Amino acid sequence: MQAKKIVVIGGSAAGAKAAAKARRLDQKAEITIIQRDPELSMASCGYPYYVGGVFDNRNALLATPTGVVRGPEFFQKTKNIKALPELEAVEIDRKNKRVLCTGVKTGVSSVVEYDKLVYCTGANAKVPPVAGKDLSGVTTLVSMADTDFLHQVVAEKKASHVVVIGGGLIGVEVCEALVNSSIEVTLVEMSSDILAFLDPQMAKLAANHMKSKGVKILTETALECFKGKDGKLTGVMLRDGSVLDCEVAVVATGVVPNTKLAADAGLTIGKLGGVVVDEFMMTSDPNIYAAGDCVEVKNLITGQQSLAPMGDLANLQGRVVGENIALGNTISFPGTIHTAICKIFDFAAGATGVSEDTARKNGFDAVETVVNASPDKPGFMGAKLLISKIVIDTKSNKIIGYQCVGNGDVSRQLATAAMAIQGGLTLDQLCCADLPYAPPYSLAIDHFIASAHIVQNKIKGRLKGISAEEVMGQISRKENVFYLDGRGPDEFEVLRLGIGEHYLPLGALKGRLEELPKDKDSEIVCFCKISLRGYEAAIVLNDLGYTNVRVMEGGIVAWPYKREK
Amino acid sequence: MQAKKIVVIGGSAAGAKAAAKARRLDQKAEITIIQRDPELSMASCGYPYYVGGVFDNRNALLATPTGVVRGPEFFQKTKNIKALPELEAVEIDRKNKRVLCTGVKTGVSSVVEYDKLVYCTGANAKVPPVAGKDLSGVTTLVSMADTDFLHQVVAEKKASHVVVIGGGLIGVEVCEALVNSSIEVTLVEMSSDILAFLDPQMAKLAANHMKSKGVKILTETALECFKGKDGKLTGVMLRDGSVLDCEVAVVATGVVPNTKLAADAGLTIGKLGGVVVDEFMMTSDPNIYAAGDCVEVKNLITGQQSLAPMGDLANLQGRVVGENIALGNTISFPGTIHTAICKIFDFAAGATGVSEDTARKNGFDAVETVVNASPDKPGFMGAKLLISKIVIDTKSNKIIGYQCVGNGDVSRQLATAAMAIQGGLTLDQLCCADLPYAPPYSLAIDHFIASAHIVQNKIKGRLKGISAEEVMGQISRKENVFYLDGRGPDEFEVLRLGIGEHYLPLGALKGRLEELPKDKDSEIVCFCKISLRGYEAAIVLNDLGYTNVRVMEGGIVAWPYKREK
Repeated sequence: MQAKKIVVIGGSAAGAKAAAKARRLDQKAEITIIQRDPELSMASCGYPYYVGGVFDNRNALLATPTGVVRGPEFFQKTKNIKALPELEAVEIDRKNKRVLCTGVKTGVSSVVEYDKLVYCTGANAKVPPVAGKDLSGVTTLVSMADTDFLHQVVAEKKASHVVVIGGGLIGVEVCEALVNSSIEVTLVEMSSDILAFLDPQMAKLAANHMKSKGVKILTETALECFKGKDGKLTGVMLRDGSVLDCEVAVVATGVVPNTKLAADAGLTIGKLGGVVVDEFMMTSDPNIYAAGDCVEVKNLITGQQSLAPMGDLANLQGRVVGENIALGNTISFPGTIHTAICKIFDFAAGATGVSEDTARKNGFDAVETVVNASPDKPGFMGAKLLISKIVIDTKSNKIIGYQCVGNGDVSRQLATAAMAIQGGLTLDQLCCADLPYAPPYSLAIDHFIASAHIVQNKIKGRLKGISAEEVMGQISRKENVFYLDGRGPDEFEVLRLGIGEHYLPLGALKGRLEELPKDKDSEIVCFCKISLRGYEAAIVLNDLGYTNVRVMEGGIVAWPYKREK
Repeated sequence: MQAKKIVVIGGSAAGAKAAAKARRLDQKAEITIIQRDPELSMASCGYPYYVGGVFDNRNALLATPTGVVRGPEFFQKTKNIKALPELEAVEIDRKNKRVLCTGVKTGVSSVVEYDKLVYCTGANAKVPPVAGKDLSGVTTLVSMADTDFLHQVVAEKKASHVVVIGGGLIGVEVCEALVNSSIEVTLVEMSSDILAFLDPQMAKLAANHMKSKGVKILTETALECFKGKDGKLTGVMLRDGSVLDCEVAVVATGVVPNTKLAADAGLTIGKLGGVVVDEFMMTSDPNIYAAGDCVEVKNLITGQQSLAPMGDLANLQGRVVGENIALGNTISFPGTIHTAICKIFDFAAGATGVSEDTARKNGFDAVETVVNASPDKPGFMGAKLLISKIVIDTKSNKIIGYQCVGNGDVSRQLATAAMAIQGGLTLDQLCCADLPYAPPYSLAIDHFIASAHIVQNKIKGRLKGISAEEVMGQISRKENVFYLDGRGPDEFEVLRLGIGEHYLPLGALKGRLEELPKDKDSEIVCFCKISLRGYEAAIVLNDLGYTNVRVMEGGIVAWPYKREK
């Protein structure tokens, strides 16, 4: 039997993985990677950290753990894969099963024949078609070339002010990389909050942390155009006509699947603009598979198609493709729950499953949520704060979403939640979950389990919650609400909201009933630092006959607006 | 209606939680906690860290996060719970629904009546009935009194040598606490390995780390008795007659459920010696519930009864009891998967589900496992090592166990695995799991998912694994095996096994075939630092017609025996 010809277009995450996996399963195949960029197997999620100087060795982004650069020689010698960098695929000729290519530098045309083709062209940065977008100083952060440019900006202090357009994962990571290098950084975000995968309160908490580290954030602010002189960027003009003077602008307004070749070849493209694949990652042509940022995948919670341009999913999909092209369709990629995490200085922020907003937009009409704030471990072990929001579908009683921000161990919380969602765990199961506990790692009742307990209390009607957003609404409407802070004097001397709240420490409450509103139907909102004592105060008030008592979820530490102290 | 009288025997984790939860659900009930110790709500899992000087404030073990000591006043004022410390329950009179008590210091008898009784007496340290066990200097670490004693030993350097008897969680934590204080520490363990929840290879890796920090470990070593002079400990005599001179010995040979009162009152006690409860945590008397270290709970994997004296489970059970005694049986505690984690200097070690050993002993006859070693995140982000073992039941294709050790983020790995087990995730699902990925937190293919990939390769027959133990067996039997280390010269100069292996870097393998055994049926074992290149070398050899090639799982870093370098 003749050796199978496997050709992979794109040699970054998904493509390189597919090629390596296919090789392990088929030692005879001829495997070729066609790669437009000069580099292969780039650790692109590491770009912001190289820019920010977390490490200095550029090769670390391109090398194996033992320091061998994954160039053509590496692929040839250790994997018997022919990798062809700086070669651009320009046409897929499905009839003759061949790919037409052009040398990026040479301009020389060539042809590569295939039995099975793997399409891993990734995604292109979405750059708004505004005036000045081609000025020197306007960049994205999607390639090693971009990375080298920004690394130089930081290392050689080539800019005093950088404007970052777009407050998604990359935008936020770039801000950190630049501010750490004492460059002035302004983040411009069109919508009302950064990090769209978070609900507003959570996103505001993340933004507050960025601001505390010196990043200026302008939300609800749109880019008009880039201004320049002699071909060089001099400023970013906003929709309102104002100009932010800057030498560098990083456009991080998202990516679009790179499907041109696939579309030209007549492969089915989905409504969201990605290549359509089945569960085996097979395109509409059974001889062509696709993986990575260029495809659409199923959202396992909504059942809808979605775009999920994430490096981890690209690798997992590449593995599935590698096996299926080598052996026929044997394994499948079920889809994604859109798990994401992002380092924000000494904070982390992330989400898995659906946000409350996404859930409601996708027809979940019986959703209950809670915001919970608590330490990640005991105070005596150096506790750090976690603030999370859990989303429960009360019809199925299952967890469908979870968000977490804070300087505590967010990563573990999200991993816990991601597996709980993928396992279809019910709220009852979460409430009794058996997680790894020891004081160096968690509280006796882990933050995640506590979040489950609180939302269960809400669902059972024992806790009436009110969000910080709603409280802010009451305040702006000047509603007559009695705000009760259940903490002690030492505490409110160092930290307090200043929204006209009454200080009534929980332990003293029963002795100072005369300070409470006379009318038992008065609207009362209880809270404390994290609203545990707020919850207990509410129980006492309910018992005293008050009919309209709510607890502000997450307490003062989850309050995303300005505080008095 | 008259207020319900709720009485709780035991005011540590489960009891205090049950009382607090009951109070939130029933503001009218009379709630009383009977507590033998002087303290309430002790954070007993924190004892070793106070002993070790991780923090100096003793009250931190007894206080709320805001620093209020959870004494009787706290319980009264903030929770309206009557807490009676230093009062010992001496008899449960079920007929008259009352508890007979004696003041610990006063000796005064009293009676407390109940409608619902909660039995949370915890567990007692198992102290072997050997000569000298009552000598001054012989202690356990289960109470504040023990903690105070050991804290003083460390703080005032009252011992030059301490012997710890028992290499379970507490024993290991005590070793760290003492060695950090530059006391000589010897750990004596009766079985062949410490930390019985780990399979031998994993336990040996943890032990190696302890030894590297200066702890002397004697396994397969039994205690004979304690030697003393003038009532003071002078040494620990071992079964072989040798004596370890020491001033202090810490007995940490496990705990037994404290069921005396329950048994005397005729409540059903299980075969393992714990109080028998149903899923509502109700004992054989419908007016008596029990929770915490004194009960038996269901092992959710084996279906068998088990003892699980863990602080987190005690709290979760206490919450269930609190709700059920307040409202009638409404929520249940399903059981445990025996999740545990333990800090060992800058290592962590833990497990969830069943070990391979436990699985086989419990009738799982189709178990596949793999040992996987890999970094927790990219090298450029400061990678640290994780070594784990995953246990799959190939009949159901589900994960039933996971162990992890290393200085990487073990906590996240275990939380991931614990939720995967509780969610009943199949191996196929694990292989495509969507976990939080960003370079500061994980590899693009997370260590946990990689473990799933490797065991799937084994199950599909693509990888024939051999454990380090088996290799050690071959060596001791002087079998004729060709060991192939697939790393480069730079690498084996700094780290190598020295078991007569041949160095044939993967990239050079095909050019140096003459160095391989002539006989294609020769036994060959491939490995490298973590055995990824070992795996690829095995694939090449198989393709060359070698019939008897295996990969040493986990590679050199998972080798638990002495290395040449």
